[in-house]
Amino acid sequence: MDDRPFALTGLFRAGLPDPAPRFAGLPRYNFVYGHNDPSEVPADALAEAAAAVLRDSGRLLGMYNLGEAPQGHARLRAFVAAKLKRLSGITCSADDVLMTSGSLQAMDLVNNLFVAPGDTVILEEFTYGGAITKVQKLGARVVGAPLDEGGLRIDALRQILEDLKAEGVTPKYIYTIPTVQNPTGSILSLERRHGLIALSRAFGVPIFEDECYADLVWTGRRPPALYALDPARVVHIGSFSKSLAPALRVGYIVADWPVLGRILATKTDAGSGALEQMVVAEYAERHFEAHLGPLRTALRRKLDVLIDALGQEFGTAAELFVPEGGIFLWLKLPDHVDVRRFAGTALDAGLAFNPGPEWACAPETAKSHMRLCFALPTEEIIREGVAALARICFEQTGVPAHGVNRRRG
Amino acid sequence: MDDRPFALTGLFRAGLPDPAPRFAGLPRYNFVYGHNDPSEVPADALAEAAAAVLRDSGRLLGMYNLGEAPQGHARLRAFVAAKLKRLSGITCSADDVLMTSGSLQAMDLVNNLFVAPGDTVILEEFTYGGAITKVQKLGARVVGAPLDEGGLRIDALRQILEDLKAEGVTPKYIYTIPTVQNPTGSILSLERRHGLIALSRAFGVPIFEDECYADLVWTGRRPPALYALDPARVVHIGSFSKSLAPALRVGYIVADWPVLGRILATKTDAGSGALEQMVVAEYAERHFEAHLGPLRTALRRKLDVLIDALGQEFGTAAELFVPEGGIFLWLKLPDHVDVRRFAGTALDAGLAFNPGPEWACAPETAKSHMRLCFALPTEEIIREGVAALARICFEQTGVPAHGVNRRRG
Repeated sequence: MDDRPFALTGLFRAGLPDPAPRFAGLPRYNFVYGHNDPSEVPADALAEAAAAVLRDSGRLLGMYNLGEAPQGHARLRAFVAAKLKRLSGITCSADDVLMTSGSLQAMDLVNNLFVAPGDTVILEEFTYGGAITKVQKLGARVVGAPLDEGGLRIDALRQILEDLKAEGVTPKYIYTIPTVQNPTGSILSLERRHGLIALSRAFGVPIFEDECYADLVWTGRRPPALYALDPARVVHIGSFSKSLAPALRVGYIVADWPVLGRILATKTDAGSGALEQMVVAEYAERHFEAHLGPLRTALRRKLDVLIDALGQEFGTAAELFVPEGGIFLWLKLPDHVDVRRFAGTALDAGLAFNPGPEWACAPETAKSHMRLCFALPTEEIIREGVAALARICFEQTGVPAHGVNRRRG
Repeated sequence: MDDRPFALTGLFRAGLPDPAPRFAGLPRYNFVYGHNDPSEVPADALAEAAAAVLRDSGRLLGMYNLGEAPQGHARLRAFVAAKLKRLSGITCSADDVLMTSGSLQAMDLVNNLFVAPGDTVILEEFTYGGAITKVQKLGARVVGAPLDEGGLRIDALRQILEDLKAEGVTPKYIYTIPTVQNPTGSILSLERRHGLIALSRAFGVPIFEDECYADLVWTGRRPPALYALDPARVVHIGSFSKSLAPALRVGYIVADWPVLGRILATKTDAGSGALEQMVVAEYAERHFEAHLGPLRTALRRKLDVLIDALGQEFGTAAELFVPEGGIFLWLKLPDHVDVRRFAGTALDAGLAFNPGPEWACAPETAKSHMRLCFALPTEEIIREGVAALARICFEQTGVPAHGVNRRRG
């Protein structure tokens, strides 16, 4: 309260980030964050699962970790192992799975395992913005590896590794989102996956594989995970945030015990929430894969609406990187457009998007790009939002040309 | 798996803690951790709450933080604020509450706000072991403040603050568990609370108040929280772990915005699990305070069994610090007994206790102490376990004298 501000802020440690702003509500045209489509959350089935598992086993909540291993709920770890075998070709047991509070905690734990100030890590040139900032906060150097429409370019990555080797640098890991790359939406082919593993072997660099979108490939089919190809050099993370619901904080790390045992020793939170793990296990055993089909269909429909709206409003001024699954679209405006020039204006008008520079290892290389998440807004809001985006963009940059903008009518 | 160990452990960063051991199951006589009594977890009511809230609002799980502020579920924050007003005399709003993944994350966040290497913090001489190790890992100096049967000794604390001031040192905080102190079980009187606040004002040192056991006072009555007395210099944390279930990771920080806004900026996990927060809110609004009475009765009954068993097995050899609430008992054996001598033997025999040194700022001062948690084991297991403890202790130290041990028959 304003009449009694904390008296001793002078004792805060040095180096804290700036304070968080007060929450101002979600923007009307919300094209940011990994929200899902609320109408696709299986609320009734989750309610049934929660009631059943709490009646049956709720008393176990009286014990930390349900009295089980600190890696997390054994039943859910077994489900994750079985799911990864069916869908990603991974051979692992429940003992190779550590449940985390979403894939964000998984990333923090993996970073804490490998990265110290002055280290070097390789990220995809365009990647999840949080992956970049987390590494930068640890004082490490970020090297971006080029992408094309097929994902990581193996030839270019080899050159980077050779250059670093010539400098005497062994990167701590190569972070990749091979299946529905964030933000470009590509899927790395099996051939490139083998090429990436070969580079890991040749240069002695671990692969940090993030497959949090892999369940959302439009076709339902994906190549085997990198972890499936060589578990001795890959740390694999995943999540139920995109396939089920992001407000559930249920992610996981899959790795061999020499990795998990070290990570567990650094984990200070007495485990992730067990109720969420129990409910997801009960639900997922019965319904998970049946749930994915309709979810993908709904997301694909929203993507089509977004693509159509962008075509109407931007015409050829927007180059779209149509994703092979997932919840976001990466696009590029003409080279002379810097999306940072109107991101603030857009936000003031209730429209939020991810400016490309925040999703790029070298921000200037993505100054004309933006990422639009399409899972949360309704089709109507998508259309309204794209029209608003075109209007604001035109007002600030002259793009899209007015004629294109008017074609809509 | 053993045939494919991770190939690149040489790239782990320096300074990691030792690997965690593989989980070997819970010991039969389990007198450690803050487990609760599983038979007192309101499983059916939680099942009803979960089903109701998921049917009604489950779709909101499709948005991070349910589309609400990053501080956590607004309905639960409002319940916490109302509960703290009724039970702890605190005047705050939901905006002053930040939900955390248990009080352990709350501790990590508060430490991260204040503590840098080389800093000094004041803890109670005997305190939660995790509070000590967390601060030590941050490279800070721990100063222990003396306790008596009434909790923190204000006179002794004043002397410590004066001595530190003479050294030019301002401690970053005074950490206290004023209501059911861990491990001594005392309740700090209102007079001492005012004395502590006066010291905070005189020396400019914040108070870090941990009230995670405050709902478990036998009488149901407790003095106002320190935060109630002076919110401008207190950071308050609490939890539903002890009052409801520890496998739910639902704790909170109560503080003014200059504190919460800084903490929020350092929180990297996209919020705590929203399903757990929704279920706790739905349950707690209807049942929380009615639940506490029977829970306290059940815990008090187990404590009585423990006290009786210790009397039978140890006689006057064990000095008991009978707690005024909670889930643990602190005891002291004769000065020549070092409990560390038989803690390992006991564990091998399936009996776990907290050796006093792990719960002490100066380990040697508690070498004859131990903490026994009594909420999890049944009355039968408590009696068997105390008999096993007496036998092992006698074999290793000659205490309790055999005559006492035989009195039981």
